[in-house]
Amino acid sequence: MPEWRKDPIVNRWVIIATERGKRPNDYKEINEGKISRKCFFCEGNEEQTPPEIIAYREPGTVKDTPGWWVRVVPNKFPALNIQGDSYQQDRGVYQYMDGVGAHEVIVESANHIIGMNEQTEKQVEEIIWIWRDRSLDLRKDTRLKYIQIFKNTGPVAGASLEHTHSQLIAIPFVPEDVRQEIEGMKEYVNQRGSCVICDMIRQEILEKERLIIDNAHFISFSPFASRFPFEIWITPREHQFDFAQISEEQVRDLAHVLRSSLGKLSSAIRNIPYNVVLHTAPVNMKEERHFHWHLEIMPRLTTIAGFELGTGYFINPTSPEIAAQALRETVEIYPIGEKYEMEVSQYV
Amino acid sequence: MPEWRKDPIVNRWVIIATERGKRPNDYKEINEGKISRKCFFCEGNEEQTPPEIIAYREPGTVKDTPGWWVRVVPNKFPALNIQGDSYQQDRGVYQYMDGVGAHEVIVESANHIIGMNEQTEKQVEEIIWIWRDRSLDLRKDTRLKYIQIFKNTGPVAGASLEHTHSQLIAIPFVPEDVRQEIEGMKEYVNQRGSCVICDMIRQEILEKERLIIDNAHFISFSPFASRFPFEIWITPREHQFDFAQISEEQVRDLAHVLRSSLGKLSSAIRNIPYNVVLHTAPVNMKEERHFHWHLEIMPRLTTIAGFELGTGYFINPTSPEIAAQALRETVEIYPIGEKYEMEVSQYV
Repeated sequence: MPEWRKDPIVNRWVIIATERGKRPNDYKEINEGKISRKCFFCEGNEEQTPPEIIAYREPGTVKDTPGWWVRVVPNKFPALNIQGDSYQQDRGVYQYMDGVGAHEVIVESANHIIGMNEQTEKQVEEIIWIWRDRSLDLRKDTRLKYIQIFKNTGPVAGASLEHTHSQLIAIPFVPEDVRQEIEGMKEYVNQRGSCVICDMIRQEILEKERLIIDNAHFISFSPFASRFPFEIWITPREHQFDFAQISEEQVRDLAHVLRSSLGKLSSAIRNIPYNVVLHTAPVNMKEERHFHWHLEIMPRLTTIAGFELGTGYFINPTSPEIAAQALRETVEIYPIGEKYEMEVSQYV
Repeated sequence: MPEWRKDPIVNRWVIIATERGKRPNDYKEINEGKISRKCFFCEGNEEQTPPEIIAYREPGTVKDTPGWWVRVVPNKFPALNIQGDSYQQDRGVYQYMDGVGAHEVIVESANHIIGMNEQTEKQVEEIIWIWRDRSLDLRKDTRLKYIQIFKNTGPVAGASLEHTHSQLIAIPFVPEDVRQEIEGMKEYVNQRGSCVICDMIRQEILEKERLIIDNAHFISFSPFASRFPFEIWITPREHQFDFAQISEEQVRDLAHVLRSSLGKLSSAIRNIPYNVVLHTAPVNMKEERHFHWHLEIMPRLTTIAGFELGTGYFINPTSPEIAAQALRETVEIYPIGEKYEMEVSQYV
């Protein structure tokens, strides 16, 4: 059973993931960034994943068989389990509890595509819809307080499988980083009477120098205090605290901004490794209406080292103004469908 | 000029390090972990670093020439500058200030040694003394509030030079991670009347299962809520808030525990990449006497990915109890001096 353990000094829970249990001998090959050649996520290999939770598929096709375009399955090596008790126990100075939670994988294409930007906008819309569906379904389990949707692309960013996918980890706490954002947004409202992200949007649109893309409902920009070179934030223009309240029009606009932002990133720096995280309001507790949800795209061109791990502060060698300008000027390169289909066979 | 920029939502300052300024074209070679062949840190190459700040050297030898055993120089590509104004300015919703601070490199050996554990205990004592000297000297600049001493070993952990060295970044704020530890320790004192780290030490010595090494003045153990496989904390047994108050006896005992802990780590997993960070009380402000200083050793066998960057929580696939047992049972391998001297010539 995995276990949640709390740091006795700060508010930091750690998952001791015994299902992934590794002993010293398992670490012989360190960070060689190996990518599996056999793809469990490709259409036709459905039996190689745990049984599907949900899929968007052709009418008449059967669960765990071909005919789908987005598919959600439990993680084969889950960091957390839905079984267990969300009761915190003490052992002397320490606190721990069962590793309660959910860990799912969203397979974002039936084809062996690597980057989200290589998909059509329509397909990106489908991915956003399935994120929403899972968010709405998982919150029915009232033990769960936060649903962390994220995406790792490239081995340096933690992706162990190449086939384009995102993940979702639902946990019984509000994560510390989200709690700090909630408190920061509340404090700003108390001081200035407005939402900090709404104000940021206004300033970015006015100043333009950090703006990357905008349309009716979304904006993408290089944050003023970017931690990473080419960091990008994407946020709805109107104040919305819960990602799952996204409208049909918003999904269309988000698909465009997200796909284009990643396309520009991947065109600017080939094979750029990156993480995407969704920060939204917690669930199953008082509604945090002051929260303004957003996506953070964190390219992994620098190394998180001693200074960052010791302080929580970051050193970024590329100013967001230079990054935004480069991204604005970058023409997105889209792969040609036909050519791509041919390359797939090398992997499956 | 480098610039400090504050995230408008959370209490996170970022250094936009323009001296290290990188444009998109500078990122062509991504994370290939290249190590420079020409070593600027070896004895005899003193003119290749900025002028030395301090060195422990043979009497009669001259600054910036051979004859030293530990040597501190400014970082050639500093993230921060001592010039500038520590005055916070506003630009709309954002805050920023000059990139005030100090960024120094501690060259830990005149020879081309890679691991701190490959040094003698006596030499590790000298490194600890010079850390203390720099900490005492830098706090004379009352703008500086925190002195972050850290060490990156291995390219995966952010080391760009192989020759054993540590770094120091002195900053005009108390870093968020340290502030949280201070608050956590204060809260614990308020609730239980004792220091949380003192209580942890008592429990670790009693339970033994996470203990690695202990002597009269120091203890090293795998923390109960280890974020990383084989994470190790080292802390003085008696309550001490300021690292710079370390005594001669304590330096001897710390040198033994630090060198042996790293030796066990490097013997258990060959070429293990790791970061070491020193958490101690801030300077030039109210003394945080509730703080208990400690070293955190973070091996980098797992990847910090979307979940970690989104939540601030970690997934650790190796329980600290298994890690501590493996480390206790590991016999440290020390290199043979003669053999080592011969290998040096390959690098210089």
